Amino acid sequence: MSQDNTTDITTYMHSVGKQARAASRTLAAANTGKKNDALIAIHDALVAAKDDILSANKKDMDKGQSNDLDAALLDRLELTDARFDGMLQGLKDVAALPDPIGEVTDMTYRPSGIHLGKMRVPLGVVGMIYESRPNVTLEAASLALKSGNAIILRGGSEAFESNQAIAKCIYQGLKQVELSEHSVQVLQTTDRAAVGELITMTDYVDVIVPRGGKGLIERISRDARVPVIKHLDGNCHTFIDRDADADIAVSVSVNAKTHRYGTCNTMETLLVDAPVAKELLPKIATAIVEADDAMQLRVDDTAQDILADVAALDGHLSAATDEDWDTEYLAPILAIKVIDGIDAAIAHINTHGSHHTDVIITDNYSKSQRFIREVDSASVMINASSRFADGFEYGLGAEIGISTDKIHARGPVGLEGLTSQKWIVYGHGETRA
Amino acid sequence: MSQDNTTDITTYMHSVGKQARAASRTLAAANTGKKNDALIAIHDALVAAKDDILSANKKDMDKGQSNDLDAALLDRLELTDARFDGMLQGLKDVAALPDPIGEVTDMTYRPSGIHLGKMRVPLGVVGMIYESRPNVTLEAASLALKSGNAIILRGGSEAFESNQAIAKCIYQGLKQVELSEHSVQVLQTTDRAAVGELITMTDYVDVIVPRGGKGLIERISRDARVPVIKHLDGNCHTFIDRDADADIAVSVSVNAKTHRYGTCNTMETLLVDAPVAKELLPKIATAIVEADDAMQLRVDDTAQDILADVAALDGHLSAATDEDWDTEYLAPILAIKVIDGIDAAIAHINTHGSHHTDVIITDNYSKSQRFIREVDSASVMINASSRFADGFEYGLGAEIGISTDKIHARGPVGLEGLTSQKWIVYGHGETRA
Repeated sequence: MSQDNTTDITTYMHSVGKQARAASRTLAAANTGKKNDALIAIHDALVAAKDDILSANKKDMDKGQSNDLDAALLDRLELTDARFDGMLQGLKDVAALPDPIGEVTDMTYRPSGIHLGKMRVPLGVVGMIYESRPNVTLEAASLALKSGNAIILRGGSEAFESNQAIAKCIYQGLKQVELSEHSVQVLQTTDRAAVGELITMTDYVDVIVPRGGKGLIERISRDARVPVIKHLDGNCHTFIDRDADADIAVSVSVNAKTHRYGTCNTMETLLVDAPVAKELLPKIATAIVEADDAMQLRVDDTAQDILADVAALDGHLSAATDEDWDTEYLAPILAIKVIDGIDAAIAHINTHGSHHTDVIITDNYSKSQRFIREVDSASVMINASSRFADGFEYGLGAEIGISTDKIHARGPVGLEGLTSQKWIVYGHGETRA
Repeated sequence: MSQDNTTDITTYMHSVGKQARAASRTLAAANTGKKNDALIAIHDALVAAKDDILSANKKDMDKGQSNDLDAALLDRLELTDARFDGMLQGLKDVAALPDPIGEVTDMTYRPSGIHLGKMRVPLGVVGMIYESRPNVTLEAASLALKSGNAIILRGGSEAFESNQAIAKCIYQGLKQVELSEHSVQVLQTTDRAAVGELITMTDYVDVIVPRGGKGLIERISRDARVPVIKHLDGNCHTFIDRDADADIAVSVSVNAKTHRYGTCNTMETLLVDAPVAKELLPKIATAIVEADDAMQLRVDDTAQDILADVAALDGHLSAATDEDWDTEYLAPILAIKVIDGIDAAIAHINTHGSHHTDVIITDNYSKSQRFIREVDSASVMINASSRFADGFEYGLGAEIGISTDKIHARGPVGLEGLTSQKWIVYGHGETRA
């Protein structure tokens, strides 16, 4: 296939789409045992092909180095022994998860006589677009298989050799259990036109799951005609209410900010209720800076007045600008604002937040309930670190992603996010009057 | 506001969107009693303003007549006494429905100590785009209010006066119970540019629900950036399996085809299993033609051979073309195909159908179960008329629409389709290790 010929790409992608749609029909009807067997067969194929996969990865790494890829990208690209073992364990973990497909709920007789219920079924065909990490190829394939979906995978060009080597094992495993090899298709092109086709082939693709930076996801969402389960930013807040327990305020704030920086559930803005700001803010700010000396605090005027004389914060303070309230830093930076009361806190969060995960620290019953109800975020928490907003911590067993949408899946998305429910009717010859 | 100035329209729509977003915050926190009071207050305002509303409708009708609107459109536009009473009853019915908001499910302790669950919450702001029927203004407003959503309504220009008169009563009712008048906003312009803004204002609108012809819905889906709950076509099948009960095959087929023609759950294609075609097809076809003498049957070659000599079908038969298998007639026309076995039937339905509602008539256990599992449609039925695929028949109490999507809401959509679930975490100071 010529990589710069758009007609060729269109033809190729439509043939991939058609094959995926056909495979999705078989997969939807495949039994749980067979799907698990496929995952284990892929596991065994990977074990046998470890050397080939690592040497393919070496080719990608060499190419990346000579192309001057940045260090972070190269790190994500590398398949270390630990990461390889992680892929193997992941397959076993997904095989051990309960099968979401076939669950029937709400069966009930209607006055007409029909017996009505809902059955959980696969979405059909998933399109996945992602960047450098080659282990995503396997993760995504295994989650799709388990949930009875065919999947089309479009990894980054920098991981092309690694992805193709992993794909070989997937095809081998599928073949071994006599499932269609088209159940999982890793694109054989890195032409960007292929992405354009993938996200607009509404006849062949039911949902797009992009993984990558905000820019990539915004671009895909803008151009897609297929629905997208998207994860944009995580601008998470912790609000220290005037009735907060001081110890919890400190420990949760430190954990939410400093446990990890690159994650979407990390606190980016700390809101402190005015009546307790003088007492609590110096303690919290000091503890956060003690946890990481590189921490920068971007503070509003009131916070500046309160913190200016705290010796431990010397060199860590600067004035916040309006932009800070809307920023996901993904770095040792924290915006701090003193705010007067829960109404102002909720309004600030709903206006400036990204509706991802927001926390109140309080021991007041009424305010805890108001916060839970009125904050319009995928996860809303009382007295716990925002870092808990995670598929594994929530017990989903696996995480396809974290959705910042309200439609379909919201927050951490497990296997269920790749399913739909259809209505089923068991009749006895009923006709409508 | 100048109606042909795009800048003005943009400014106007953004101000409408901002107001809707603000109102949605209050509505999300409004208690059930207050929302029901609002519905009853609107009911009372409508009763008091009946004369004004009917005379506004008369203006629309007069204008429609002098603009030569077609008869079907004029019929939908007209607010008869019966329709007015229907609107009043609808408000009481929606007030009597259970409130979907606030339902908490799946509360469970996680190993970390957090108490995790899901809370049902409003989507936020709904945008509704619809054509001539002014009663939709009220239906949509009441469903949005009950589910705690603000709504922006954009009715057809032909119903402008009627919609404004109804809107006045809605504002009055909202004001009376001290809910924001911006909870329901009926656009004061019929400029098409307003639709373009409505479906792309992702900051202010969470979901678009279009009601109208396939053309309108395709156009909106193509241009929207806000998610759309869409209903495209209903190309519904009934498959008469070789193990069908003959009486049920006849009665369900007649009901599915002739009960109503303009509805999306009407049968458009009849598939008959080859071994029983000779015995059953003449009976079914005759009964359908007896039910409506205007019926046209578009038959494949095999069906033609079987039916050619049936006197009752004289003048009703013509040869089906490939296009017939993909067509939603919405008319007394039925496509008929003789097909060999359940595999071919399922393949035909999944390929040519619109994934709306499909039926098998059989008394065979295994085939009934395969059909339920493998047919990829929003509603899949055994031994019942496809006409049952309906929000009221399914017991949803109200119907916002019927979704042909797999994402979010599928099939008949009730109040729950206008809601989302957020994760709630009750902690005790937990931090992540």
